[in-house]
Amino acid sequence: MESTSPNPVLVDVFRGPRVESCHRGAIAISDAAGHLVLALGDVARPTYPRSAVKALQAIPLVESGAADAFGLSAEELAVACASHSGDQVHLDAVTSLLAKAGLDEGYLACGAHWPVSDATTRALLVEGKRPRPIHNNCSGKHAGMLAAAVSLGFNPRGYEKPDHPLQVMIARILSETCRVSLDPAHRGIDGCSLPTFALPLSALAQGFSRFGTGTGLAPERGQAADRLMEACFAAPVLVAGEGRFDTIVLRGLAGTAFTKGGAEGVHCAALPELGLGIALKIDDGAKRGAERAMSEVLGALLPSAWAVLANELEGEVHNWRGLLVGRMAVGEELKRALRDLRGAVGRTATG
Amino acid sequence: MESTSPNPVLVDVFRGPRVESCHRGAIAISDAAGHLVLALGDVARPTYPRSAVKALQAIPLVESGAADAFGLSAEELAVACASHSGDQVHLDAVTSLLAKAGLDEGYLACGAHWPVSDATTRALLVEGKRPRPIHNNCSGKHAGMLAAAVSLGFNPRGYEKPDHPLQVMIARILSETCRVSLDPAHRGIDGCSLPTFALPLSALAQGFSRFGTGTGLAPERGQAADRLMEACFAAPVLVAGEGRFDTIVLRGLAGTAFTKGGAEGVHCAALPELGLGIALKIDDGAKRGAERAMSEVLGALLPSAWAVLANELEGEVHNWRGLLVGRMAVGEELKRALRDLRGAVGRTATG
Repeated sequence: MESTSPNPVLVDVFRGPRVESCHRGAIAISDAAGHLVLALGDVARPTYPRSAVKALQAIPLVESGAADAFGLSAEELAVACASHSGDQVHLDAVTSLLAKAGLDEGYLACGAHWPVSDATTRALLVEGKRPRPIHNNCSGKHAGMLAAAVSLGFNPRGYEKPDHPLQVMIARILSETCRVSLDPAHRGIDGCSLPTFALPLSALAQGFSRFGTGTGLAPERGQAADRLMEACFAAPVLVAGEGRFDTIVLRGLAGTAFTKGGAEGVHCAALPELGLGIALKIDDGAKRGAERAMSEVLGALLPSAWAVLANELEGEVHNWRGLLVGRMAVGEELKRALRDLRGAVGRTATG
Repeated sequence: MESTSPNPVLVDVFRGPRVESCHRGAIAISDAAGHLVLALGDVARPTYPRSAVKALQAIPLVESGAADAFGLSAEELAVACASHSGDQVHLDAVTSLLAKAGLDEGYLACGAHWPVSDATTRALLVEGKRPRPIHNNCSGKHAGMLAAAVSLGFNPRGYEKPDHPLQVMIARILSETCRVSLDPAHRGIDGCSLPTFALPLSALAQGFSRFGTGTGLAPERGQAADRLMEACFAAPVLVAGEGRFDTIVLRGLAGTAFTKGGAEGVHCAALPELGLGIALKIDDGAKRGAERAMSEVLGALLPSAWAVLANELEGEVHNWRGLLVGRMAVGEELKRALRDLRGAVGRTATG
């Protein structure tokens, strides 16, 4: 990777008495002004946020007036922010979102993959069918972008290209929300073929603080962010799926913690009541590391997270026969940093 | 992990112009005497080899006389060394191996998981069935252990327990082959419920050199190792499955390179013609990192590997629409080490 020193170990995976594997990474926690209350590891390194910023990418859907013009429901807004499992409830929301914009799934440019959902995968297999683009976990985001493009009078064809006016608009919104310039030399292509810009975790954390609180955003953008976040709290299963991390958090900590994971070990969060944004990346891209680390950060900042994330904080690893064979434990540096952070946030809250 | 300095980056995963993720790890390459021709990263750290040592765990099946007594085929010996896909060819071999020992799949203690094979998964789903222990990728290893236990006059029930005489025998064989004492404090439970002992990569590499060449092993153990390796070369699809790394290597480099991957980023190899053994571990447990690093090591040592592993060495990353979005590239330290190694092995070969 870069020539900087290695990031600290955030998560150790034990098997029996010994560490079998470990996950290094970096975490930034910021307020809306960009003050970092925690910076562990290299939080300045440009990082592809991938699906973690889907809610920010959905802002034009509301800000453009499309959500009102098309009369979008909480479910349809939530699925536009989703990495969904491809269950029927997700497919229904994507289909109706597209229909309200006068489109159908033939417009989706996200490509196809087998759905995350075992039930949908089984249904497809039993019928001898292959997955379609609507089964892609990103199809709701794409449907939302298509609806925004239609509402703004843009050609919906080619909406996924970096120079399409909708993507130019989304890049500007990301840049303004995270207060960072987006370097075209830091642009990659996402799994679903949309552009993804690498930006520092510190900027992402600030962006999520601003997204969660509206602080520093134009009023209509703050309202758009709030409406999207409320939709996700109201329809948490639409954002991921039953049993998945973000659905568990959005359901159990509605109003308190908005979280969204992305591919390759990125996880972001907005904590509106504390005014904080969180962005973390596991160097090796492991989701298990990202979710374990995010659980620990949420647990440190929100006592109400302990019960909601009890399983994740316990971190038990079971084998095929259900035997307990290991445990995912938090690294020493992260533990220390969170102890210090609890002290600092406690002092601020009471001081 | 340990308090030692971090292992070097073995593989960088690029997305567009930038590194998105990276995989650290360690690699040992040894001859049969334990002389390390390459030691990159911490090769002394005890490492759970998991399924990478299945061929070593299968030695009693041949050494005990069970293979001869039961008239086992190459397919049945190969599946005893396998992490198989659960295709019909694998299920057939496991079933016949068990039948020859007078047993059936009810004896398997490996637990069940959905097969790696899409075809078998689909067949199960269409029939409304759940996977059974025979679909577990480790079922061939378990069947081989059961057959060995029967042949040796041990009770086949409880064969998976650390204190069962077969597991005690296997631990002694591992210890003798790798020339290292196995510390009970370094014992974990594997995914398939068998004991797995953590041992240094340096010892694993020496063990694979001895397994591949027979050097330093008792004659009957060397013959057992040779018969198992030849079975895997003769029936490469039994050891993994179509399209999978070890099957590609065993088929394309038969007689020249025996490779076997294990869970959590372990990969081992025996190169009989060069007299070398290889053991590597990706710190974070990523299979993609282990296979990319092993490809590079094999390519450096065996010119014939370039064509066989062309796709793996290219390392292209494609997205859901098939667009080229990135590349898996080998880290600088590994590149340098392999350049030096090529020079050293070349000098030995010609000197």
